[in-house]
Amino acid sequence: MISWNNLDQVNAYQELSKVARVNLAEVMSGSNGAERVKKYSVSMGDGMAYNYAAKQVDDDVLAALEKLAAETQLVEKFEALYNGEVINTGEKRLVLHHMTRGQLGDAVVADDVDKRAFYIEQQKKIADLANKVHNGEITNAAGERFTTVVQIGIGGSDLGPRAMYLALENWAKVNNCFKMEAKFISNVDPDDAAAVLHDIDVAHTLFVLVSKSGTTLETLTNESFVKDALKNAGLDASKHMIAVTSETSPLAKSDDYLAAFFMDDYIGGRFSSTSAVGGAVLSLAFGPEVFAQFLEGAAAEDQLAKNKALLENPAMLDALIGVYERNILGYQNTAVLPYSQGLSRFPAHLQQLDMESNGKSVNRFGEPVDYVTGPVIFGEPGTNGQHSFYQLLHQGTDVIPLQFVGFKNNQMGSDVVIQGSTSQQKLCANVVAQIVAFACGKADENRNKNFNGGRPSSIIIGEQLNPKSLGALLAHFENKVMFQGFVWNINSFDQEGVQLGKVLAQRVLAHETDGALKEYSDLLNI
Amino acid sequence: MISWNNLDQVNAYQELSKVARVNLAEVMSGSNGAERVKKYSVSMGDGMAYNYAAKQVDDDVLAALEKLAAETQLVEKFEALYNGEVINTGEKRLVLHHMTRGQLGDAVVADDVDKRAFYIEQQKKIADLANKVHNGEITNAAGERFTTVVQIGIGGSDLGPRAMYLALENWAKVNNCFKMEAKFISNVDPDDAAAVLHDIDVAHTLFVLVSKSGTTLETLTNESFVKDALKNAGLDASKHMIAVTSETSPLAKSDDYLAAFFMDDYIGGRFSSTSAVGGAVLSLAFGPEVFAQFLEGAAAEDQLAKNKALLENPAMLDALIGVYERNILGYQNTAVLPYSQGLSRFPAHLQQLDMESNGKSVNRFGEPVDYVTGPVIFGEPGTNGQHSFYQLLHQGTDVIPLQFVGFKNNQMGSDVVIQGSTSQQKLCANVVAQIVAFACGKADENRNKNFNGGRPSSIIIGEQLNPKSLGALLAHFENKVMFQGFVWNINSFDQEGVQLGKVLAQRVLAHETDGALKEYSDLLNI
Repeated sequence: MISWNNLDQVNAYQELSKVARVNLAEVMSGSNGAERVKKYSVSMGDGMAYNYAAKQVDDDVLAALEKLAAETQLVEKFEALYNGEVINTGEKRLVLHHMTRGQLGDAVVADDVDKRAFYIEQQKKIADLANKVHNGEITNAAGERFTTVVQIGIGGSDLGPRAMYLALENWAKVNNCFKMEAKFISNVDPDDAAAVLHDIDVAHTLFVLVSKSGTTLETLTNESFVKDALKNAGLDASKHMIAVTSETSPLAKSDDYLAAFFMDDYIGGRFSSTSAVGGAVLSLAFGPEVFAQFLEGAAAEDQLAKNKALLENPAMLDALIGVYERNILGYQNTAVLPYSQGLSRFPAHLQQLDMESNGKSVNRFGEPVDYVTGPVIFGEPGTNGQHSFYQLLHQGTDVIPLQFVGFKNNQMGSDVVIQGSTSQQKLCANVVAQIVAFACGKADENRNKNFNGGRPSSIIIGEQLNPKSLGALLAHFENKVMFQGFVWNINSFDQEGVQLGKVLAQRVLAHETDGALKEYSDLLNI
Repeated sequence: MISWNNLDQVNAYQELSKVARVNLAEVMSGSNGAERVKKYSVSMGDGMAYNYAAKQVDDDVLAALEKLAAETQLVEKFEALYNGEVINTGEKRLVLHHMTRGQLGDAVVADDVDKRAFYIEQQKKIADLANKVHNGEITNAAGERFTTVVQIGIGGSDLGPRAMYLALENWAKVNNCFKMEAKFISNVDPDDAAAVLHDIDVAHTLFVLVSKSGTTLETLTNESFVKDALKNAGLDASKHMIAVTSETSPLAKSDDYLAAFFMDDYIGGRFSSTSAVGGAVLSLAFGPEVFAQFLEGAAAEDQLAKNKALLENPAMLDALIGVYERNILGYQNTAVLPYSQGLSRFPAHLQQLDMESNGKSVNRFGEPVDYVTGPVIFGEPGTNGQHSFYQLLHQGTDVIPLQFVGFKNNQMGSDVVIQGSTSQQKLCANVVAQIVAFACGKADENRNKNFNGGRPSSIIIGEQLNPKSLGALLAHFENKVMFQGFVWNINSFDQEGVQLGKVLAQRVLAHETDGALKEYSDLLNI
């Protein structure tokens, strides 16, 4: 029997708050620090590991977190989720994104179909289309091959797929699976679509229109923009456009599209990278095999997330350490710092994933909670960030917990030796140095050059950023966010906070405004 | 006579803390809200305005802020800065970035030259080179024109110039001043340089190497990477590369470069977009006239920053409201939300500008301060952010102050009418709607759909994002950050917090490690 309780009603949470704090600078120095690096690591499979040696934890804190995991029934709640319970209490929906990459438990039938079979069917349809586009069976009207794919979507239909594309683009180029260049149109700012259209050859471009409801204003507006451009080029838009939508949307059976692939209400936008939303553009860009490897990597993490043993469940451990930092230690932000240029937009994806899921003030029953929930997430790739905002991370007045990601090998295989080391070695040396600098600091009589240390971080280490490790990384964070939502007793799967702005924007466009809204509208000449 | 005192020693700060708090949802509703929108606005010149109606201020708070500005002598300190005092106390340097765009006060002689004359001389040299590249006087060895410019730099040599380039790229394309495409290599991750080199035609590319000291490891490494590529293509690297550096650096008089342009120690990287660091790449990309307009826009804001009257000094007002939010109201972050796709990387630039300048824990004399200083800065363009992290901004457990930017007109002039409005109108309607939604909220019996409001924001409104308004925007935030540093009594112009990581990374590369540092190095195969 599962109980859903607010965090401040949980005994283990009260106990956790009483466990002695860890002096990070102290425990990370000398041989004790070395021991921690060896000991505080959990395998993510396939050569990847989540290392939390530089977090403010010790065996006592971890024991308390294990009790917290048990009392809040995190794994049982995950089980309920993948077995098809209505976990999204706000919208009264199942939550099935894990099923796009594997069957973790019972068969789940909804809308009269087996959902795993449904998702596989969509993947097969996408693979079939992608293969036909790549081998020239599907071409433009002139019989020429499509060379570019442009995704039109916003939010979850943009950030995840875009971050995944950028993460694999260069890997694909050197591994002979770069099939088509992808570009993305998202913003309702007309300059976004105009700029992309300016840069591409529309005659050889396939557009992927992504909107679950088929009613997203930004996306429909940009579709219209693109259709105008196709028409002006004398092209038949319906031969250049596919749709990814739900079966009940107006786009589903329209003749305006070459093909339509389906998602459903059980996958939120921010969790949709492994569904048809990511599947169409990634399969077209890199081939269906690459997308399949990506799903495989994600599926392996989902399996790990079933482990009840906290120290063998990296996503749950990451989640609970995050809750400890947020609710007990009082840290408000988390910085995501991948040491890999390929992950340049991964922090932007995690920003949506985390902040849209857990930026809530009411519990899953709609009652206000008396504790803080989701943190602010931000980040940029290293070493770039070191030359930007790390100053504040090292010497600012607030402590910001850090999430590093690093890979032993680069993607493209080109490198250069300068001053006795390769660029890849310099990159790795920097992430290692940062972890220790943040944790241990360094005393200096000149206070301006003094580092207090005590700034916690973890690192996920992998062999190389490739489809499988990217899938693992994505699923790790999806599951972390899910577990944190369970701990905070909130619904991580709706987003009512985006509604009010939409309503007011409609009112502005209809000129049905007064007060401040009218004055602001006048200032912007609307 | 200027006094430098810690904020908690300032009488006006104690008074400010006692002024009654403003109930934002209340004051922004009805006709009172409309009045505030009209009244709480300050001109930034040239049709731009900073509107702070939706900030948690009223006449009492503003009066207290005006006293704070006077007692902390903010304008006098700015005066001292532009008249050549040693404001960067840590490195014992002048701070002269304003002088790249105008002479605000006395002539400043340093290193035996008049600095204004020196910066103008560099601009002229750059303009001359750019014109010769554009008209074909300077070509590659085969006599063919250069079509692409690639900036090699990191931190301030990358983020600012890159953000400015992206902000003007599409404007330039429709205004017939798009001369050369620009790309940027920054990260020591070898995949960064490899990817850019993969995408360009090196035979027609001019590289701009930017390093003040001439010793930045990432930049020298990437230079070597690029030189290898040029050599492998049978090209003479010295005919494809210019340098932007200080006169005393090893790059200054090297035969390895076609030309060298100079900056100096009085301009920090994050304040260098208006120096040769931004000047070279922007003049090559868009022509020297566009760069000159950009400087003109910045210079106009610098003039406004001299106003002692708080309500006529937008940067100082923005700065003080930020201090009020940070130190009295206790808000830890600020989100920067430009409703313009061209400003896609502007928040990343501001992140460095603000966090590297004011992420400090000691005052300008090296003594610890007992209050919080610089906030975390993050942001993405709207409307994209609305579909991402706005959920937390609206309904999360922490209040995050917001900085909107919006323009009445788009850059490219293409637009489409859907459901009775253009995309531009939809874009503007959304930013207006968000301000009111954040400020006023909306009560709902379903707590999940309830919005408390009371979430403060300001907006900078302009006619269009173009070189002049971009310059104004840049200078506004540079001056805001400077004023906040003065209020907090910190040195905003050094960055000692980046040093420890560099030292430890060198130790890792030399294999001179023990303890945790050695273990982490082993994990990453260094």
